[in-house]
Amino acid sequence: MKIRVGIYGYGNLGRGVENALKQNQDMELVAVFTRRPPETLKIFTAGVPVVSAASVLDYVGRIDVMVICGGSATDLPEQTPYLARYFSVIDSFDTHAKIPEHYAKVDAAAKEGGNTAMISVGWDPGMFSLNRLLGEAVLPDGKDYTFWGRGVSQGHSDAIRRIEGVADAKQYTIPIDSALEAVRRGENPQLTAREKHLRECFVVAKEGADKERIEREIKEMPNYFADYDTIVHFIDAEELARDHSGIPHGGFVIRSGRTGAELEHSHIIEYRLKLDSNPEFTASVIVAYARATCRMKREGMVGCKTVFDVPPAYLSPRSYGEIISTLL
Amino acid sequence: MKIRVGIYGYGNLGRGVENALKQNQDMELVAVFTRRPPETLKIFTAGVPVVSAASVLDYVGRIDVMVICGGSATDLPEQTPYLARYFSVIDSFDTHAKIPEHYAKVDAAAKEGGNTAMISVGWDPGMFSLNRLLGEAVLPDGKDYTFWGRGVSQGHSDAIRRIEGVADAKQYTIPIDSALEAVRRGENPQLTAREKHLRECFVVAKEGADKERIEREIKEMPNYFADYDTIVHFIDAEELARDHSGIPHGGFVIRSGRTGAELEHSHIIEYRLKLDSNPEFTASVIVAYARATCRMKREGMVGCKTVFDVPPAYLSPRSYGEIISTLL
Repeated sequence: MKIRVGIYGYGNLGRGVENALKQNQDMELVAVFTRRPPETLKIFTAGVPVVSAASVLDYVGRIDVMVICGGSATDLPEQTPYLARYFSVIDSFDTHAKIPEHYAKVDAAAKEGGNTAMISVGWDPGMFSLNRLLGEAVLPDGKDYTFWGRGVSQGHSDAIRRIEGVADAKQYTIPIDSALEAVRRGENPQLTAREKHLRECFVVAKEGADKERIEREIKEMPNYFADYDTIVHFIDAEELARDHSGIPHGGFVIRSGRTGAELEHSHIIEYRLKLDSNPEFTASVIVAYARATCRMKREGMVGCKTVFDVPPAYLSPRSYGEIISTLL
Repeated sequence: MKIRVGIYGYGNLGRGVENALKQNQDMELVAVFTRRPPETLKIFTAGVPVVSAASVLDYVGRIDVMVICGGSATDLPEQTPYLARYFSVIDSFDTHAKIPEHYAKVDAAAKEGGNTAMISVGWDPGMFSLNRLLGEAVLPDGKDYTFWGRGVSQGHSDAIRRIEGVADAKQYTIPIDSALEAVRRGENPQLTAREKHLRECFVVAKEGADKERIEREIKEMPNYFADYDTIVHFIDAEELARDHSGIPHGGFVIRSGRTGAELEHSHIIEYRLKLDSNPEFTASVIVAYARATCRMKREGMVGCKTVFDVPPAYLSPRSYGEIISTLL
């Protein structure tokens, strides 16, 4: 029997999950839930109902795992604990500082419902977190570095769009090569925010707007840009649409550590992602972990889980015997 | 209470495990077991007994996990099933083709003894296996590539040493840059052995030996060299000792895959190791998984296990709360 999946929320991530499910023959999409009027939503998959989020409880017992595709700011803190009472669920909650709080709420809800709830799945948090843990466990005398990019930061792009006189904008986070190289050489440098990443902005100004003021406001914006070297390009709407409509991203997790009787040997572990589409890759990671969520639920592992709890074999559709004879 | 560890077999790997244990404050070395006369062995750690392998059963109940550091050809197929009856154990069995057979024997023995036995831990098999599985699970429409090197291959070096007239030799396996770059660009090339790796040999010939014949015999050796472009350098014993006494290694596992409604987006996952000392890094991986072995045993997960069975959190000495608040 296939794993029956629901998608709750249908934006970029929800569409990514829908596509990823087609690449996994042991899973099937049962329904897409939306807060919009269901008849206004067109999905890719023929024959799958679009259902009002208000009717989600009608599907209790008909869905093995619900993939919750809301945003971390306001959606997931409400949706995941609510839905974990009724379904096994998975989300991509990515507000790092609030993960322990989210974990506690989801854990209580999932245990109440006897469900398995996986949170913070994707690539960061997610695959990058896994690599930070593995690196630290394997090379305890060491240091780890996470670099992001080259990729579009949605949060920074949004921050620019809120400036008066800005019609549209895209911001790229770019790792600084010389810093990356120093880390790869095992030099264990201390790096400031400015030394690790560069911020490059493509901005469409409204007609008559003061570009000098906009550029100054971007570069001086606290938290977002003030601690970085920031490059601002003003371009027109056509160029933005033509050259900057993609959502690429990626990055690096590097662990540099030493071993030996006198710590005389140096080792570098590097995990790198280069992604054409951030939401589609995130969705692909989520779908693999949705499979694991379902298996963990079947084995009675209830409560809140993260990537740190998942035996890797649970991510694969293949049998254990096949895995050890072909991948080990 | 600390995790009590035994080391069974004291070569390069055993010494690496001894050093790695010093980097992990939650573990302690209880004894080193050897088939040599124990009094002939000098170990680094003060106060730890060196014990004859024949007396290993005296330590039943005094060791939480035995790290078996024998070779895959003849030692481990005997030692791991034997010791798994009496101890929870971990080994680095690396004959890929014989893993299912080894697994079955170790599983039966471990279950008989009520122990947890982890096999094939290190970097390949081990961390590379884990990355092959993760890559395939996350990007099912894709292809994976493993490149090894630049590093010393013990098996190939030994094969050269068996040629008549050879006094000593070191062989480096070197990934071919152009192949690596094609993979990184997402071209999914079909690559022959010759297109993926180059073999470079540093050979010390015995006095009066026929170097032309030695070079020919190396280059034509089936399985080892015939399918590769091979470079042979003749050097003297001093140069070999000075420039080629290290045991560096490493490599790459790259998954290249596609997502999207029409598979229009390409993604690259790259895992890279650059290691000054192959046995010390292998030992460091083993020690982290020895911690996990011990935890799995405590939770009643008996039988044979591999890296595919281990929830990543079990590898870390830190508490779960600390892990999710700092690494996720």
